[in-house]
Amino acid sequence: MGELSELFVPRRVAVVGATEREGSVGRAIMENLIDDFDGDVVPVNPKYDEVFGVPAVAGVGESDADLAIVVVPPHIAVQAVREAGEAGIRNVVVITAGFGETGSEGASREQELTEVAEAYDLNLVGPNSLGVMSTPTGMNATFGPENAMAGEMSFMSQSGAFITAVLDWANDQGIGFKDVVSLGNKAVLDEADFIDAWGDDEDTSVIIGYLEGISEGREFIDTAREVTQDTPIVLVKSGRTDAGAQAASSHTGTIAGSDQAYEAGLEQAGVIRAESVQELFDAARVLESQPLPDSDDVAVITNAGGPGVMTTDAVGDSRLSMASFTDETLDEFSETLPEEGNIYNPVDIVGDADNERFRNALDVALADENVGSAIVLTCPTAVLDYDELAADTVELQERHDKPVAACFMGGERVKPAAEVLTEAGIPNYFDPARAVGGLDALSRFRDISEREYDRPTTFDVDEERAREILSDVEGREDTRLGVEAMDLLDAYGIETPQGDIVDAPEDALTVAEGIEGNVVMKIVSPDILHKSDIGGVKVGVPNEEVFDAYEDLVTRARNYQPDANIIGVQVQEMVDLDSGVETIVGMNKDPQFGPLLMFGLGGIFVEVLEDTTFRVAPVAESEAREMTEEIDSAPLLRGARGRDPVDVDGVTETIQRLSQLVTDFPAILELDINPLVATPDGVKAVDVRLTVDPDQL
Amino acid sequence: MGELSELFVPRRVAVVGATEREGSVGRAIMENLIDDFDGDVVPVNPKYDEVFGVPAVAGVGESDADLAIVVVPPHIAVQAVREAGEAGIRNVVVITAGFGETGSEGASREQELTEVAEAYDLNLVGPNSLGVMSTPTGMNATFGPENAMAGEMSFMSQSGAFITAVLDWANDQGIGFKDVVSLGNKAVLDEADFIDAWGDDEDTSVIIGYLEGISEGREFIDTAREVTQDTPIVLVKSGRTDAGAQAASSHTGTIAGSDQAYEAGLEQAGVIRAESVQELFDAARVLESQPLPDSDDVAVITNAGGPGVMTTDAVGDSRLSMASFTDETLDEFSETLPEEGNIYNPVDIVGDADNERFRNALDVALADENVGSAIVLTCPTAVLDYDELAADTVELQERHDKPVAACFMGGERVKPAAEVLTEAGIPNYFDPARAVGGLDALSRFRDISEREYDRPTTFDVDEERAREILSDVEGREDTRLGVEAMDLLDAYGIETPQGDIVDAPEDALTVAEGIEGNVVMKIVSPDILHKSDIGGVKVGVPNEEVFDAYEDLVTRARNYQPDANIIGVQVQEMVDLDSGVETIVGMNKDPQFGPLLMFGLGGIFVEVLEDTTFRVAPVAESEAREMTEEIDSAPLLRGARGRDPVDVDGVTETIQRLSQLVTDFPAILELDINPLVATPDGVKAVDVRLTVDPDQL
Repeated sequence: MGELSELFVPRRVAVVGATEREGSVGRAIMENLIDDFDGDVVPVNPKYDEVFGVPAVAGVGESDADLAIVVVPPHIAVQAVREAGEAGIRNVVVITAGFGETGSEGASREQELTEVAEAYDLNLVGPNSLGVMSTPTGMNATFGPENAMAGEMSFMSQSGAFITAVLDWANDQGIGFKDVVSLGNKAVLDEADFIDAWGDDEDTSVIIGYLEGISEGREFIDTAREVTQDTPIVLVKSGRTDAGAQAASSHTGTIAGSDQAYEAGLEQAGVIRAESVQELFDAARVLESQPLPDSDDVAVITNAGGPGVMTTDAVGDSRLSMASFTDETLDEFSETLPEEGNIYNPVDIVGDADNERFRNALDVALADENVGSAIVLTCPTAVLDYDELAADTVELQERHDKPVAACFMGGERVKPAAEVLTEAGIPNYFDPARAVGGLDALSRFRDISEREYDRPTTFDVDEERAREILSDVEGREDTRLGVEAMDLLDAYGIETPQGDIVDAPEDALTVAEGIEGNVVMKIVSPDILHKSDIGGVKVGVPNEEVFDAYEDLVTRARNYQPDANIIGVQVQEMVDLDSGVETIVGMNKDPQFGPLLMFGLGGIFVEVLEDTTFRVAPVAESEAREMTEEIDSAPLLRGARGRDPVDVDGVTETIQRLSQLVTDFPAILELDINPLVATPDGVKAVDVRLTVDPDQL
Repeated sequence: MGELSELFVPRRVAVVGATEREGSVGRAIMENLIDDFDGDVVPVNPKYDEVFGVPAVAGVGESDADLAIVVVPPHIAVQAVREAGEAGIRNVVVITAGFGETGSEGASREQELTEVAEAYDLNLVGPNSLGVMSTPTGMNATFGPENAMAGEMSFMSQSGAFITAVLDWANDQGIGFKDVVSLGNKAVLDEADFIDAWGDDEDTSVIIGYLEGISEGREFIDTAREVTQDTPIVLVKSGRTDAGAQAASSHTGTIAGSDQAYEAGLEQAGVIRAESVQELFDAARVLESQPLPDSDDVAVITNAGGPGVMTTDAVGDSRLSMASFTDETLDEFSETLPEEGNIYNPVDIVGDADNERFRNALDVALADENVGSAIVLTCPTAVLDYDELAADTVELQERHDKPVAACFMGGERVKPAAEVLTEAGIPNYFDPARAVGGLDALSRFRDISEREYDRPTTFDVDEERAREILSDVEGREDTRLGVEAMDLLDAYGIETPQGDIVDAPEDALTVAEGIEGNVVMKIVSPDILHKSDIGGVKVGVPNEEVFDAYEDLVTRARNYQPDANIIGVQVQEMVDLDSGVETIVGMNKDPQFGPLLMFGLGGIFVEVLEDTTFRVAPVAESEAREMTEEIDSAPLLRGARGRDPVDVDGVTETIQRLSQLVTDFPAILELDINPLVATPDGVKAVDVRLTVDPDQL
């Protein structure tokens, strides 16, 4: 592990506020530490000479500890942390509540705490934390009622109560942990820090967590990408739904980012997002212990046809598929299986199958090069010994080194077999869908671990010109820009239709004469948002009508709003919509993840069908291309219904250029290119709207 | 119960093929019956005087039984059933395998069995069945290793092995059953028969099942609709996915209907379809024991904020919503809950909550008129006694008579509490999503039980004219019809554009002159499917060009295919697509459910986005309207993006009229109206294609 290592493997732990008082947190922590911790425990409390027979010191400065657990009341907790820092203790866990979660006084106390931690360069967990655990040293520095069993999952949670619930349940299920941390208010250390540390920890094979928010989106993505090259991360991020986001916001007191940003950010980070506690642990358990499959083709071996069909459905619902066996395998099955069975997948070895037939069939299937993983699916029969089958399954899984999921159906009679399987890292489920879910998680993580993250392309752009255009809003009350900012796109190499904004009818004519064919004319005014509604747009204007059209547009605008700030009239080349597809490329700012890019097809696709996709900027070429591929309406870009495909490369490049623009200028708060017309010959940004924060320029 | 009653409550059961031979089915059934059955058991076997000390008879005719279980080998099984019928035994369960599931010899044996059953009017279960159980009399007439516990679920399964697995598991979970039946090959009695019987059975409060197919779709729908006015039905119908359907087909040897038909048919039947075994039992357990909620507004009472957020997410995922409390409730919570808690939903009564605070909060929430159901959600703490909370939860649920779900999180320490809850019909889950899932099922069934099924409207149509048009295919090799059958729609009152099919250019002109504006002209030939591709369609033809256009169309058709059967040229009014929306109304035949209606929006919506919806015909007005409402693109019919809404009533009526047409004429194998153009002023069927089976006319 990296810098945080001492936090989980301290030599000597000081408990600041240790006491024997019944029902107190200081007592609970002392008890938990004394029970199992391999190192030394030092009670810190000026009121006592000893606590539970352990000699106490008056101040943390005298403790000679390398980890301090702070449980004293809030008004003296910050001072205790400062003393720890002064004494050279680098690792501090603040259990004490009454900080940021409790209003303005608490918030300023938390600010003070953060400053102290920075001054002394502390690894500080909390405040408002249940504590930390690490099973290799038996350290339970929490005030919870349960200690963790040893295992290879490391677990962080933004809810301390959830940790106590999980531990009680996990102990019953035989699930163990390496480290456990209750993040509390995350005043200093946050999820990215622990992911980083556990990524370097050889004893952690899976990182799991429950989060209500992510503190620094971009940092999280960058850290998680590196870690997930080797170590899977599975998280429940709650607040997925509108109702949940509202509840999370009220629970943690932080502004919730949009779930679209979390969904995009977690995906870009390589995190497997679980939607429920069950999904979280189902995925984590197999990721902890099983090898990754070489292929997504699953063999199902069963003594019962009906459940075999159910399992096939579950495979159909997942990213996996049913394996097609090689001829050798089929020959082998033909020779060894009864005629009324099924040699094709799902392999039905029939209800009278004994252990030998089961073992042989599984062995043959796992040996097949077309098989990436297998599911052992059984219903109880008089001739099948579940315990023996469990042992065979474990042995064959290890020998073939392919992932195996177990679905030994039944209740009481399955329990000893299930224990053998669980012990060997093969969780057993009654429901085939959950067995398939585990294999699905392995397949997803294999793809994540094989990802190559390209760097975002840096295009040659005119940043100075862009800055000038954006500066237009300085000193203005209304900081929105519209078509008058089309040059901004131009500065970043995003193609726009030929044309210009003019403020005199004769100039309009000059521009129009330079454009082939009729033109589109639009009034340009920051005060007039819905131009079409007031007749502020004229389409297909021939040159001879341009002069009058100019006058008419200005008159309409004046009539509509006499005091409107009229910048002029845009005279623009007609873009042929018939041969093209209207798309929208947009960006808005997420409080946690920063610029969030959006892509979709124009009109009904975004507005009615909500067929959109999101990415946190900056994006690499591959990510921009994925955006053009993963919307439901993507086939329309690629020539559905006999039409020519449009210039998808151009769309992809436009997304990347916009990504670069909004990354270069955090002052751009939101921006929409709508429509970006894509034709077989290229793309053109026909209209743009953005909002700028001049203070960030 | 109705006619099937004797099957489950026999006085005296004959076991035809009873034996003591080790490992035999006849022995297993004898043992199971002797163990617990309240009535008499009669072994039938000419080889023995007695079996397990029970006097045997030589033939079933001498048994004086009212239920015969047949386990003798296939070649003598049919004769045994005949003898039972002759002896006046009305109820027979054929355990014996080797019938329809094993090839052509077996199939003809099964046919013979069906004929015998019909001759003697037998209630016949199987063949190839595990048997039947009924807990009130302790009858276990199966050869499975487990007996069921008593309960109020009745359970049917097309997989016998699945029954043995479920029983073993259910006994461990404390889940009981009223009747259990292994359907086997369903030669006589099928799922609809058991649904019908259990619907009348006062001791069955939920019907559950595992099916791989439904024998008679329409009968099933009609039966289930009636039963689900009172009794919920929850089914796993496997073969949902393509892979699963293939596996199901190979397992049962029947042609799989499309899952679109099953999805539509089960929904129309009022059946709750579970996607997994877990979903099946999670739904069934609450439906068995809990009251239906008056509203979908849920209160969540918790001592832990984090899990409260997770639960809120699960509510957001479901059809339920978070309750908004009345002012009285909020006042009450303000007065009684600690300041750091949350009085809004999810109600956070904070980690130091004792049993009294929990009980009071739940009591207040359940008393709130805005609350339809509640979830009790806890993490383990030192101050909360789970057992006491379980008792309180049960008491308050009963007192307020509102559904309550429990999510007492934890492992070992939860077990006694979970038993108390389960006993009272409140299943406890570690995962909040599953607790929410149970309440969701209650809400769904409330809506199902309140449904009023309208009868399909019978429109005044010209059936004779329709029959004449359809008869055109008689004697033809190609039994497809195209625009030449537009009159068919007309005969059923579906509006078509003005126009006619003519076979001479001067007639074309006459027709065109009778139509306002320019016309569309299309070649009409059963041999030319893709008219546009050969230039067989002319749009916007003015009257002066009609004559030449006629000649040109015919020439093109002749050049394309000299021997084509050219019926003539269709001259049709231009339908204004700009003000309208193109829709598609179609039908194809499903092997189980018969005519299956499809509706969607034309072009990309059906072809690229697959945005379609299905119903089994005939449909009532309400069902046809639902079809226009439930596609994703439905807003486009109702005036999205500032356009005028189209004539949705007209679309709805067209679906109903098509439903009547295809119901009246089973000879129509498939039919597509594409497009049916819907404008604000009405709907017009612009083109039609159908395939007819002349033998069914």
